[in-house]
Amino acid sequence: MNESGRTRRLRLGMVGGGEGAFIGAVHRIAARIDDEWELVAGAFSSDPARGRRSGIDLRLDPQRCYGSFKEMAADEATRSDRIDAVAIVTPNHVHHPAASAFLAAGIDVICDKPLCRTMGEARDLVAQVSASGRLFAITYNYTGYPMVRQAREMVAAGELGTIRTIQAEYAQDWLSTDLETTGQKQADWRTDPARSGAGGAIGDIGTHAFNLAEFIAGQECAELAADLSTFVAGRRLDDNAQMLLRFAGGARGALWASQVAPGNENGLAIRIHGEKAALSWRQEHPNQLVFSRLGQPPVALSRGGPTIGAAAAHATRLPSGHPEGYLEGFAQLYRDVAAQLRARQAELAVDPLTTLVPSIREGVRGMAFVTAAIASSAADGAWMAIQAY
Amino acid sequence: MNESGRTRRLRLGMVGGGEGAFIGAVHRIAARIDDEWELVAGAFSSDPARGRRSGIDLRLDPQRCYGSFKEMAADEATRSDRIDAVAIVTPNHVHHPAASAFLAAGIDVICDKPLCRTMGEARDLVAQVSASGRLFAITYNYTGYPMVRQAREMVAAGELGTIRTIQAEYAQDWLSTDLETTGQKQADWRTDPARSGAGGAIGDIGTHAFNLAEFIAGQECAELAADLSTFVAGRRLDDNAQMLLRFAGGARGALWASQVAPGNENGLAIRIHGEKAALSWRQEHPNQLVFSRLGQPPVALSRGGPTIGAAAAHATRLPSGHPEGYLEGFAQLYRDVAAQLRARQAELAVDPLTTLVPSIREGVRGMAFVTAAIASSAADGAWMAIQAY
Amino acid sequence: MNESGRTRRLRLGMVGGGEGAFIGAVHRIAARIDDEWELVAGAFSSDPARGRRSGIDLRLDPQRCYGSFKEMAADEATRSDRIDAVAIVTPNHVHHPAASAFLAAGIDVICDKPLCRTMGEARDLVAQVSASGRLFAITYNYTGYPMVRQAREMVAAGELGTIRTIQAEYAQDWLSTDLETTGQKQADWRTDPARSGAGGAIGDIGTHAFNLAEFIAGQECAELAADLSTFVAGRRLDDNAQMLLRFAGGARGALWASQVAPGNENGLAIRIHGEKAALSWRQEHPNQLVFSRLGQPPVALSRGGPTIGAAAAHATRLPSGHPEGYLEGFAQLYRDVAAQLRARQAELAVDPLTTLVPSIREGVRGMAFVTAAIASSAADGAWMAIQAY
Amino acid sequence: MNESGRTRRLRLGMVGGGEGAFIGAVHRIAARIDDEWELVAGAFSSDPARGRRSGIDLRLDPQRCYGSFKEMAADEATRSDRIDAVAIVTPNHVHHPAASAFLAAGIDVICDKPLCRTMGEARDLVAQVSASGRLFAITYNYTGYPMVRQAREMVAAGELGTIRTIQAEYAQDWLSTDLETTGQKQADWRTDPARSGAGGAIGDIGTHAFNLAEFIAGQECAELAADLSTFVAGRRLDDNAQMLLRFAGGARGALWASQVAPGNENGLAIRIHGEKAALSWRQEHPNQLVFSRLGQPPVALSRGGPTIGAAAAHATRLPSGHPEGYLEGFAQLYRDVAAQLRARQAELAVDPLTTLVPSIREGVRGMAFVTAAIASSAADGAWMAIQAY
Repeated sequence: MNESGRTRRLRLGMVGGGEGAFIGAVHRIAARIDDEWELVAGAFSSDPARGRRSGIDLRLDPQRCYGSFKEMAADEATRSDRIDAVAIVTPNHVHHPAASAFLAAGIDVICDKPLCRTMGEARDLVAQVSASGRLFAITYNYTGYPMVRQAREMVAAGELGTIRTIQAEYAQDWLSTDLETTGQKQADWRTDPARSGAGGAIGDIGTHAFNLAEFIAGQECAELAADLSTFVAGRRLDDNAQMLLRFAGGARGALWASQVAPGNENGLAIRIHGEKAALSWRQEHPNQLVFSRLGQPPVALSRGGPTIGAAAAHATRLPSGHPEGYLEGFAQLYRDVAAQLRARQAELAVDPLTTLVPSIREGVRGMAFVTAAIASSAADGAWMAIQAY
Repeated sequence: MNESGRTRRLRLGMVGGGEGAFIGAVHRIAARIDDEWELVAGAFSSDPARGRRSGIDLRLDPQRCYGSFKEMAADEATRSDRIDAVAIVTPNHVHHPAASAFLAAGIDVICDKPLCRTMGEARDLVAQVSASGRLFAITYNYTGYPMVRQAREMVAAGELGTIRTIQAEYAQDWLSTDLETTGQKQADWRTDPARSGAGGAIGDIGTHAFNLAEFIAGQECAELAADLSTFVAGRRLDDNAQMLLRFAGGARGALWASQVAPGNENGLAIRIHGEKAALSWRQEHPNQLVFSRLGQPPVALSRGGPTIGAAAAHATRLPSGHPEGYLEGFAQLYRDVAAQLRARQAELAVDPLTTLVPSIREGVRGMAFVTAAIASSAADGAWMAIQAY
Repeated sequence: MNESGRTRRLRLGMVGGGEGAFIGAVHRIAARIDDEWELVAGAFSSDPARGRRSGIDLRLDPQRCYGSFKEMAADEATRSDRIDAVAIVTPNHVHHPAASAFLAAGIDVICDKPLCRTMGEARDLVAQVSASGRLFAITYNYTGYPMVRQAREMVAAGELGTIRTIQAEYAQDWLSTDLETTGQKQADWRTDPARSGAGGAIGDIGTHAFNLAEFIAGQECAELAADLSTFVAGRRLDDNAQMLLRFAGGARGALWASQVAPGNENGLAIRIHGEKAALSWRQEHPNQLVFSRLGQPPVALSRGGPTIGAAAAHATRLPSGHPEGYLEGFAQLYRDVAAQLRARQAELAVDPLTTLVPSIREGVRGMAFVTAAIASSAADGAWMAIQAY
Repeated sequence: MNESGRTRRLRLGMVGGGEGAFIGAVHRIAARIDDEWELVAGAFSSDPARGRRSGIDLRLDPQRCYGSFKEMAADEATRSDRIDAVAIVTPNHVHHPAASAFLAAGIDVICDKPLCRTMGEARDLVAQVSASGRLFAITYNYTGYPMVRQAREMVAAGELGTIRTIQAEYAQDWLSTDLETTGQKQADWRTDPARSGAGGAIGDIGTHAFNLAEFIAGQECAELAADLSTFVAGRRLDDNAQMLLRFAGGARGALWASQVAPGNENGLAIRIHGEKAALSWRQEHPNQLVFSRLGQPPVALSRGGPTIGAAAAHATRLPSGHPEGYLEGFAQLYRDVAAQLRARQAELAVDPLTTLVPSIREGVRGMAFVTAAIASSAADGAWMAIQAY
């Protein structure tokens, strides 16, 4: 149990996440779970009236239910009780302008993934973050799962030896038909290049798998060879991606991202094999992590259970056997950002365990991944370097 | 996503749950998740100073950080902004006096399980609840899991036909050694008859398994035959219980509760077999429910997935494949209590889906179960009726 | 790989197992797998013509396709190339007379389970086996699985410490309806007291679970309390049994045997918890054995894999990951019997690893189990001692 | 149960498989299980004395324990009781000369996989098979598993709709270290290009995964892009292969073959996703097949269980819940070859269910796969057509 102590709750603003949205409500629950944040302001919709209505529904002060993120950034910057951070939870095309507005206003940013639509936008955000000195977190939320952090810690401790192979995948089935033609909001914008960017499945979920691989492996993926497909007729973006990976440390791997694979709900999974041992983790059963030492039978590590290290313990609320889920993993990012902000406000050293939250660096890596995948596929699978800068 | 709307948050008070406690923090997170409640008052410890310190740490108004539950009940009853409900999260021996105090003050009660220590206390609480007209919820929290409600709904709809067998179990290993002699707080009071009551494992976890069986089966367990054991030398209460069950509708079953079973973290599981079909659910993977029709291959139902009914949908926040866990299941009880209170305050009909929260009735059934188990074991396993009233 | 060497194949005779039988063909495959036996004689049916036809179909010498087991025992006893052993694979009511005939003829016996119909028959067979000095094996075939032997070896080596609880179960669903009224041969005799004996599910499958518990635990079950049911209207024997167990060494347990549990194909499973560690094994995935040391994460032991001991290695043919199944487990009994017979023929010491085959002792224990269960259930669940002698 | 009937057992000869071999004993057990074959002749080793000793140990007529396969082919061809087929179970480099010798002698061939070492050898064998009119079976034994045949049948029946993605993998860990330097016989020849051919992991196990994908999908893989690695220093052949696949029918896929992945014993697995449904199968739990219809919860099909079709039923010996394993799957190929030979001998129509045994065609496809993979990897992952002819 890790609750906050005497300090005040941090003030959170939100851009996007109004009526009909999915991820906005996730962010709000995640921010509440550990009682570090209170939502106090928002521009919840591109439709000002709709956005204000959402804010009222969320019990905000009507004065802080803004008609646009620009208005919000400008007004909040001048308040004495200004927000400590803004969460940007819109479709991708709004990430860059919204983040720019808040960074310019001197406000820390928590941004949903992927970072934006293009490498140009991504590099511009890097420059802005650097110039502003603001914290920029990106919610590759699966890094908040305790057993994902356990895996990273074990790799870093050398328990696997040199990594040889990484098999990452993220399979779903919800776009197996042309759902975007039915008015379904989530499908609509995700399959629209103008709002989603150039990546379909690779941007929406492939980036998660890619981020997870680099996060756990503790090394960068240097290059990839991709074969992107669009199986649903009329769809404008990829819905399936098959890729080979080569990592900076010599590991070889594969990544599969699909939104047209029946029977897969949210099938993010990763297996990492080293010369001495291997790890296997599946998002749909996130409290377990299988650890297989060469020449030993596999061991089922359990969140909160025996032999679990500091990184996972830091991200854990409940004893073993009491399953934590997606929301708790997501909440960990909010808890860690809060800890970083409090340390900065108090001019104290930051606890390294709170610094695993993905940052602008991971945001740019994701965009470089999407860019390389599209380029590789266009070149019939030629290997392409993943160049973030 | 189910968030609250324009109405104010309900005001929650808490008795117990201060420094070093486990379940108090769980209640607080559960109450926060759906944003229906705010914690505003508490008597967090039997040690007044310690209790006040906990309240301050939780950012409460110091005036509402009480030194005792009696003081709290008395004072809150007089406030215009009095709490809407109190959560009692103390060791068992405090349940009866604390609940009595708040019921007498006209305040609704959310009480942890088991209800109390004896059938006498239990019947007294029944009388008080009846006389007061107050809502009394008991946090048999596993009933808040969506797939548990799905199971109940399927049984009620006749999808299993007449139920024939029910195999329930709840196995843990954390008391496999004499942990209570080490000063571990959770082990200390749970193995002390004065604070825990006459049941050890049967009271602490057996009641959960029993409640789950009756909840899903939709029928009462009429009688049981029990063999209770204490395997750890020096322990004063049972740590293992083997039981046979007979249900009112003719089903036969077994229940195993153990806190000395290595390899079991929080192994609550139930299997119900009817003449037409069967269901199997395991708490450690709560988003799945296996449904096996006679003559058909088993089907893996998934929270949020295809063919899931209204009861589970009501208790769900996330799409399928995004695992919900223990805290979300627990939160469902708080969400449902809030809905009941709001309906009453608004003099509106209560949504039946919100009324599945266990009540004083389930509390008394649990005590009757413990009482019958102890009596049966003392009579060398003679069948004993489970008589709640 | 363990093949036979220069010695001749042992000669096997068979009683029962003709057209339409199930277990007879299993015995024949089991006897073939390790190339230790050749089938040379048989009385395959109570209908002489049908039995001879079966023998011809099996390519036997027509002179050794007998019209009855009596004729077979008499004739084989006089042959210079007489059978080395007879396998009795008939319905239960034939076990006693057939075994008696072959023991009297000085021929070793491999008998299917349960041993017979009554304790009287059982004790008579004990006396005959003792008087004849013949080998008597009973095919509690699940003891032939390598990981079952591994479990037994680990318990014997003290890796679990003192055993505290044993949860055994054997659930099927094939008798969920009144299949015996349709002419289905297997259902017909199993639900007929005259041919099956007094036990239904407890005799047919409960005995397997009971045997497995004693085999792995290495201790006897001293007494039981049982609640037998017949759920299918018109059925003459139990089809569901709920039981509590008490073991000689102080362990407590439960046993569930059911043939009316939808979704269960052949669900034999056992979990044994000691003060130091626990084991869990499931027949439907027989190559795995989960070993959980207290305070350590569970380990998934694998047949042929790391840390596996001599008993399992002795019973293994393939490397790990190449699943062995039901037939290989069954074959192990034939292989071990062959080794015992060869040792005796060669007047050599018997390899202890070959002596784990269940014998007349296990046969009588099974009958005592059935007898106690029926008596206990008739006495409303009173504890009954399991008295084999 | 499928036993043979009055016809004689077919006579089997064997090349290779003497002392110290692995797969030879597997072939012998597989040939015995269904009682269709008897081993009567062999050239069990390249060392004549050793080979003869093996034959004697196997109880063969010493006259038919040959010093070389050439001698054996020549002699058997002249016998009136000549072998009906020869099983070639040597290291790969002997496949072509041995098969050639027996084809030339007019004897049917059952050959282990991969077919041989080079496309040149492969094409030569195609010509010889064609010219001789002999049956040529190749033991891609995983095609003998009932649920693999079930999968193939469901795909062919259109239950998945158009196939979109195929994810195949075969991971092991036994070559994670330089085992070949320790004298371990299996590792020795498999890592020697002269005996194994140009493929390491791709030849030994990648071909199995490739064969399985084409077998179930019922369509050819048109091209691949491969990244082969050798992780163990000093090893002369690949030990890890990452590949992308494109199928003739438009499906995209990936294949991973590794012998250096800790925690993987014999991890052959395949997932096939179509526009309407998907299938998932894992070799280590071969009796299950998960079938997921889009918009329906996944169904766990079970060998011998409900809704299973004719192809799987044909390959099944036991009721559901009684696990069949690797040996039974392997045995199915021997049973089907026997049925084909008997039909030919009797001049009867061949039962189509017996014709799923992989033939020279599948042998050549495997060699084309290895050839394309090596060429692609050498060309830095350029797509290469898989051209069998």
